[in-house]
Amino acid sequence: MILDKINEPKDLKNLSDKEMENLSSEIRELIIKKVNEIGGHMGPNLGIVEATIALHRVFNSPVDKIVFDVSHQCYPHKILTGRKKGFIDPAEYYTYTGYTAPEESEHDIFKIGHTSTSISLAVGLAKARDLKNEKGNIIALIGDGSLSGGEAFEGLDCAADLNSNIIIIVNDNDMSIAENSGGLYKNLKLLRETKGESELNFFKALGFDYLYVDKGNCIEKLIEAFKKVKDINHPTIVHINTLKGCGLKEAEENKETFHWIVPHTLDNFYNSPTVEKENYTNITTDYILREAKKDSAIVAITPATPGVSGFNKKFRETLKNQYVDTGITEQHAVAFASGLAKNGAKPILAVMSSFIQRAYDQLSQDLCLNNSPATILVYWGGLTNADATHLTCFDIPLMMNIPNLVYLAPTNKEEYLAMLDWSVKQNKYSTAIRVPNIDVISSGIEDKTNYSILNKYKIEQKGSEIAILGLGNFLPLAKKTAQKIKEIFNITSTVINPRFITGLDEELLEELKKEHKIIITLEDGVLSGGFGEKIASFYGSSNVKVLNYGGKKEFYDRVPLDEIYKVCRLKENLIIEDINKVFNLVKL
Amino acid sequence: MILDKINEPKDLKNLSDKEMENLSSEIRELIIKKVNEIGGHMGPNLGIVEATIALHRVFNSPVDKIVFDVSHQCYPHKILTGRKKGFIDPAEYYTYTGYTAPEESEHDIFKIGHTSTSISLAVGLAKARDLKNEKGNIIALIGDGSLSGGEAFEGLDCAADLNSNIIIIVNDNDMSIAENSGGLYKNLKLLRETKGESELNFFKALGFDYLYVDKGNCIEKLIEAFKKVKDINHPTIVHINTLKGCGLKEAEENKETFHWIVPHTLDNFYNSPTVEKENYTNITTDYILREAKKDSAIVAITPATPGVSGFNKKFRETLKNQYVDTGITEQHAVAFASGLAKNGAKPILAVMSSFIQRAYDQLSQDLCLNNSPATILVYWGGLTNADATHLTCFDIPLMMNIPNLVYLAPTNKEEYLAMLDWSVKQNKYSTAIRVPNIDVISSGIEDKTNYSILNKYKIEQKGSEIAILGLGNFLPLAKKTAQKIKEIFNITSTVINPRFITGLDEELLEELKKEHKIIITLEDGVLSGGFGEKIASFYGSSNVKVLNYGGKKEFYDRVPLDEIYKVCRLKENLIIEDINKVFNLVKL
Repeated sequence: MILDKINEPKDLKNLSDKEMENLSSEIRELIIKKVNEIGGHMGPNLGIVEATIALHRVFNSPVDKIVFDVSHQCYPHKILTGRKKGFIDPAEYYTYTGYTAPEESEHDIFKIGHTSTSISLAVGLAKARDLKNEKGNIIALIGDGSLSGGEAFEGLDCAADLNSNIIIIVNDNDMSIAENSGGLYKNLKLLRETKGESELNFFKALGFDYLYVDKGNCIEKLIEAFKKVKDINHPTIVHINTLKGCGLKEAEENKETFHWIVPHTLDNFYNSPTVEKENYTNITTDYILREAKKDSAIVAITPATPGVSGFNKKFRETLKNQYVDTGITEQHAVAFASGLAKNGAKPILAVMSSFIQRAYDQLSQDLCLNNSPATILVYWGGLTNADATHLTCFDIPLMMNIPNLVYLAPTNKEEYLAMLDWSVKQNKYSTAIRVPNIDVISSGIEDKTNYSILNKYKIEQKGSEIAILGLGNFLPLAKKTAQKIKEIFNITSTVINPRFITGLDEELLEELKKEHKIIITLEDGVLSGGFGEKIASFYGSSNVKVLNYGGKKEFYDRVPLDEIYKVCRLKENLIIEDINKVFNLVKL
Repeated sequence: MILDKINEPKDLKNLSDKEMENLSSEIRELIIKKVNEIGGHMGPNLGIVEATIALHRVFNSPVDKIVFDVSHQCYPHKILTGRKKGFIDPAEYYTYTGYTAPEESEHDIFKIGHTSTSISLAVGLAKARDLKNEKGNIIALIGDGSLSGGEAFEGLDCAADLNSNIIIIVNDNDMSIAENSGGLYKNLKLLRETKGESELNFFKALGFDYLYVDKGNCIEKLIEAFKKVKDINHPTIVHINTLKGCGLKEAEENKETFHWIVPHTLDNFYNSPTVEKENYTNITTDYILREAKKDSAIVAITPATPGVSGFNKKFRETLKNQYVDTGITEQHAVAFASGLAKNGAKPILAVMSSFIQRAYDQLSQDLCLNNSPATILVYWGGLTNADATHLTCFDIPLMMNIPNLVYLAPTNKEEYLAMLDWSVKQNKYSTAIRVPNIDVISSGIEDKTNYSILNKYKIEQKGSEIAILGLGNFLPLAKKTAQKIKEIFNITSTVINPRFITGLDEELLEELKKEHKIIITLEDGVLSGGFGEKIASFYGSSNVKVLNYGGKKEFYDRVPLDEIYKVCRLKENLIIEDINKVFNLVKL
């Protein structure tokens, strides 16, 4: 294998063309095998193999610095920068993250997982180089999909003003996760069709020097282009036309499916699909499809992550103009939803917890300050074992402290549907719903609550001495804890389902004082700035004791969930221990 | 006066050209008089008088909907839409806000104050119109400065994809608050110079139909252009070349100074400037100038709001390449700072509390996840009597719940300088400093604290029974309260200056339990998600009582500060009442 000889980028310098070609095949094979085995980003990495080889052949990392946008396309880079064992040896498959990680290698400059950041980061690197009078190339590698994100544009606009070396490689595979939308993509298409010759050129209009590479999966052509721009003294775009999923027929032909896959997607690709069991994703899409048929003002929106919310091909085709993929534009998506709602439409914006972080100011100013009655569905909210770049545990503090917002935490199917229906059909409040991130629980009984009466918590079980507030995903833990309390202390606790994240049920909380000594709060997210602390503040001047449970304020990096639960004492037996520590109820 | 006849937009329909011209003079005069009297946005409003008349002449608001970006240029619009008395009668000067406000008029669609939002909001309005099969023009009026904001680009990209009527008027006066920077502005310049004829056209590249109006302060030419695009069935840009400050010599010649002015700036313009007394702004600029001279890696950054941080002409000219105005790009600015810090520079990013809201995700992912040792200076943080669009009371919950960040709250000059110097020179932590928003207090003693020892609170006065934690701006209130407690209860309280917003001094807090029954927290911002709630949570399971003081989770809209303080009980005598209510210490 050629790869045997490659332990760092400089080992590429003396390879022949043929050897580099063989190397690309070897890398491709490793990626296909590993990603099919344990899941991960398939299409983006297969498309960028040649460009990565060419980059490391021409430039001298880490003196020359490459910033990978989103960095989910960094597998070939990891293989070429001393981390190949993470792809060759199945025992090492989990050794390295799926994103660039400076703690792994000096060739990784940033820890990145959100999109559209590479150009701004690179402008910073370049400006620092200039301030220090140093040399070296600064390269940002960004996909066409990521270019729609506002941060990328801000970066481009400023990069163009930099009076020195910065090279932005636009990896154009004509795809975001799903198809691109937006005016920019018509220009990219035109540029591809004219081999970069069109006068109408978005990048040139911003003042960049511009180079087009039609064969973005041809190492030779890429090397030629990169050599041309190496050490260039002004901002330059290299627009390379690559094939997403290149080298794997299934991925080339099913680009969206193979963008990111779960284990064994490839093995199972030609088997007939198994029937999907009921989950909050298909409960949601069923609801939207049903209601959209009745009301043409309902519109489902995704900021380029339709997979997160199950907005699949069939869903999109059925909804037609009642479906909008805004591209990677969380800020726009929220403002767009506000505009829709203000003019009488009924927008339902589905977004992943980790990515709603992009739109704090839009949630605050564009949406809630205007009381625009849009519905935001927040997916995957909760503590996870995910990479630090994709945590989904910050949405509660992020959103609950915004005035006017009604943020709801349903705990079962009927409650969720009632909240969703209320949210979509009311026209007074900006609302968000934290779509449950647990298996579907069904009460079997229609929820007829009027959610317009805000901040009314629901008593699931009435007791005394101890009350447990189990928010959203953690109501089951509250119930289990109550059961354990009964077993150990022989106390029937009160179990409460707050339902409303954004407000206190002061009447109920006041009432609890009478017969309760301990209030326990459980939330599936970071404690810091969240729900429980407000309960502690409410009872601060009373004799009631409050114990808050939730995640720590940390960027957990692929920490097993059970370990997080242990450290945060989010387990019924640990909560029991804590209660006993304070009150000495029994000898445990 | 022509204006006597104008009570709503349709009254413009029958005016002659001459009458419209006179009307523009009358409006201009009113604006100059009022803004000079009470302060406000001068240049932006003077520049847009003619365009506003032309818009209301050609279009039929509110059936046709106009969205004003930032909306600080809406004064002529307010005058023409039934609110002229707010400009004619000094007794009514404060009746209307300085921004669009739907509660004032059906001609105002959104409450807006942050930039770059108009296009996305307008795309939402347009899509809702289409879903409901309605007619009408949707117009976004956006300044050239606002176009650099990422949200504006996301909106443009999506607007270009809308297969129906949307008209975006680019009000190009070749200025942001200060001079523009960024590649986009070279293109706007080229378009102005070629009267819109250049092939290199940013807007056309995105797929827009494009119309250029060279004389953007000529009503006739504007009407002609607007008539051309009225009822157009596809996304269209009308690029109008206007003069910021038009009609007021001082404002035309000093565009930055007259963007937004304090009362009587015009009256005092030709007087020699009074010597500025010491404040945290000039303390900061003095520090930066001094240190930047010694270290070429220090770089001061503003996202287009140099005035907020006193980055005046002299400051910029002295710093040269150690000063960067990134344009209106809070997201980029934070990522840029991260890149700079990662490559060994020492960035100091100055940003207003209200606008840092734009960059939550960049603070989290680009900066703190990477532990990039940049310094963010947050200006104007605290409760204010400002317009709801410009509140500066959310930065504490926004930032303090982000892992890894060290957010500091200095309370006097020496402490501030010590924190600033530590922050700039250390290379381990991403830091932010809440620049005090009160008169300068000087201890006269150099602060030699090593701030690398994180989360050590400072005991300002040692006592017992009651401890008061006065965060940042509110340390003086803590001291006053302690004094009052001494007077009324004859108790010497402990007064604590937390200094670190982002972490608990658990050792100290634990220690306090021994001799204290009540802990009081004071913070100059919304309580919700902030500092005090964490103290309440810390003491939740103990016998110590906690009283949290801060702002309510509300969009306060020009509420007098004293009234906010009263309602939030942020006054020493009210705090005394609360203490007494809980503990019945004396008969008050």
